[in-house]
Amino acid sequence: MRVGILGGGQLGCMLASALFDVGAEVRFFEPDRDAPACARYHDVVVASWTDEAAMRAFVQGCDVVTYETEHVATVALATSGAKLAPSLHVLTVTQDRKLEKEFLKSAGLPHVPFATASGPSELSAAAAAVGFPCIVKTARGGYDGKGQSFVATPEDLESAARGLAPDAPCVVERALDLALEASVIVARSSRAAAGLREIVFPVVENVHSAHILDLSVVPARIPADLTEALHRLALDAARALDVEGLLTTEFFVTRASEAGPRGLRVGAYEVFVNELAPRPHNSGHVTRNACTLSQFDALARVLAGVPLAAPELLGDDTYCMGNLLGDVWLAQGRPQGALDLGLLAAHPDVVDVVLYGKREAQARRKMGHFVTRAAEATRAVASAKAFRDGLLARDAP
Amino acid sequence: MRVGILGGGQLGCMLASALFDVGAEVRFFEPDRDAPACARYHDVVVASWTDEAAMRAFVQGCDVVTYETEHVATVALATSGAKLAPSLHVLTVTQDRKLEKEFLKSAGLPHVPFATASGPSELSAAAAAVGFPCIVKTARGGYDGKGQSFVATPEDLESAARGLAPDAPCVVERALDLALEASVIVARSSRAAAGLREIVFPVVENVHSAHILDLSVVPARIPADLTEALHRLALDAARALDVEGLLTTEFFVTRASEAGPRGLRVGAYEVFVNELAPRPHNSGHVTRNACTLSQFDALARVLAGVPLAAPELLGDDTYCMGNLLGDVWLAQGRPQGALDLGLLAAHPDVVDVVLYGKREAQARRKMGHFVTRAAEATRAVASAKAFRDGLLARDAP
Repeated sequence: MRVGILGGGQLGCMLASALFDVGAEVRFFEPDRDAPACARYHDVVVASWTDEAAMRAFVQGCDVVTYETEHVATVALATSGAKLAPSLHVLTVTQDRKLEKEFLKSAGLPHVPFATASGPSELSAAAAAVGFPCIVKTARGGYDGKGQSFVATPEDLESAARGLAPDAPCVVERALDLALEASVIVARSSRAAAGLREIVFPVVENVHSAHILDLSVVPARIPADLTEALHRLALDAARALDVEGLLTTEFFVTRASEAGPRGLRVGAYEVFVNELAPRPHNSGHVTRNACTLSQFDALARVLAGVPLAAPELLGDDTYCMGNLLGDVWLAQGRPQGALDLGLLAAHPDVVDVVLYGKREAQARRKMGHFVTRAAEATRAVASAKAFRDGLLARDAP
Repeated sequence: MRVGILGGGQLGCMLASALFDVGAEVRFFEPDRDAPACARYHDVVVASWTDEAAMRAFVQGCDVVTYETEHVATVALATSGAKLAPSLHVLTVTQDRKLEKEFLKSAGLPHVPFATASGPSELSAAAAAVGFPCIVKTARGGYDGKGQSFVATPEDLESAARGLAPDAPCVVERALDLALEASVIVARSSRAAAGLREIVFPVVENVHSAHILDLSVVPARIPADLTEALHRLALDAARALDVEGLLTTEFFVTRASEAGPRGLRVGAYEVFVNELAPRPHNSGHVTRNACTLSQFDALARVLAGVPLAAPELLGDDTYCMGNLLGDVWLAQGRPQGALDLGLLAAHPDVVDVVLYGKREAQARRKMGHFVTRAAEATRAVASAKAFRDGLLARDAP
């Protein structure tokens, strides 16, 4: 059994480990020869997403192909004959915000009120239909806040329009006053001869900073009815897309009010599906530490036809993952060097550090993560903040 | 920071993952081109242990070199200029039973009564000095019961002598009536600028079958005073050897009796150091599941100069690792194929399976392992046995 992974970043590397463990061979396809997988793994094809010959040859050597990012140009892939999991349909829908929103609408999943626009000329009408404040998002290629503009009033539309191509497809969505964000990972399998067909991971509570995931807390500090609702919606989304593999559903949660947009009312909250990612997810790193089965193990099992198992929390502790962005390397004055981890000696709650092996640190670039563990959630979170603050301080040891 | 690993088997592969996580680059040296690392990792030098030029070139590309096996011929290594951790002295002592026994004696560590012999002609005198029943072990190259003969009475000596080279160095040791076996892994570091210099992992209780580790249980089901004694002895051994890296100490434990050989008396037990391994150990796999820090993480941190952390148990459950020998593949009729893991669907206590990627299954060859988890130790062990029995049954799904 040989599994092809499109993308040789950190998610692909962690998936490779899990695939080895269940007896699979692994082959990467990656356009960037500086990507982490290239310096680590044996079988890496370096070629462009649009290189049809390279893609066809790659796919022929693989029993099944998956992807660690949805930002894969699908032209070469579509004609390659790849047995893709999740499917090309899932990839196509989730890599385009417009198609994704339309899917949420058609599937009856609660979502943020939105309108679509083609280029700057249509922004104004779309924004008026949605209401202010709103957010303009390009339909393609955006992640970690890239391709997004916050529009507080009609006067901000002009600056949002700047930089948009004349007919760039966009989604304009109402800006919400968030109570919290959360994500739920679902794995679905039809390949194993026996066992669970679907599993749902514990709800992860996410804190973003400047549009990038900052902290992920497990278990999420939310009421039981909200947990149940998020689990059900994540399963609904995965089933509606007939996902074979992983689907991460990101949620917005607001406090219910008569004035705000309506999602799914759960107790004192309103729930909205924000977006979908059909792959291992940054917010799921913590499953490697907190659960009997990680998101990577789950996907590896689906791809290799090995039965799934229910992912259980390992104990009563709370785990908090913190991202390490390139900013930390820059603060330490070593953009191409190794991060100084001496500070670990003073932070015993940090139980894991994972550096991704990216060649050059840049501001806002995800370069690694760490995980804290504590009996009290407040302590797990406080310890994570303290550790990262320490790394960011110029005089870190 | 580039770390060289001598040996590309499963222990080296798991160490590589841990090294990547702390930001190190990894290079393997491995004589067998079918070894697991060769098909997985990018930077693998395939050459003989005695190839001085290859070893020298390998070592020059590494900031520090470690080993995943003590069965490394040291001739090329000794002259290579390698910065070795643990040291060449540690490797030399632990790869030779005679030197190891003499070390235990000189360090005042409790050990099984032994005598040495050079070849068959000296066996009889050595056995008489030790007493019967005894075990003849070749000083070099033995593992998993290889190179060992059980000698119940003087009449058995002839068959033990057969197959021994004329002057093969041997150790003859008294055979004990074991109450249990256990192992303790210690990590020591002098490289990090701050933090713990030594850590001790939870005691692992080991069950052997036909001289090969069969099951490892954490936490060990032993009294607190015994745990404390094993921890102290393991630390004493690591300190006496001045280990930089890991040292696994394997213990024999008997019920105290006036008749039997004397080790260290602890309550109703006598404790003996059986042998030492200065590397990640098969019995330590369970630390990847049960502890906040695994044996591989610990060694990676020592090598990369990252501070150690105390390895804590993740909860109140018991974990049991079971080895998967080639016999399982042979029973399934697929010596070169993938193991059928469909049985996982019926065994929810199995929380991890790790297949090593060895090309061909052979009887008694370590091909993988799995780990169960349960609130009750008896259940964790029973589940492990049941899962493996299922895999061994010819009609496994």
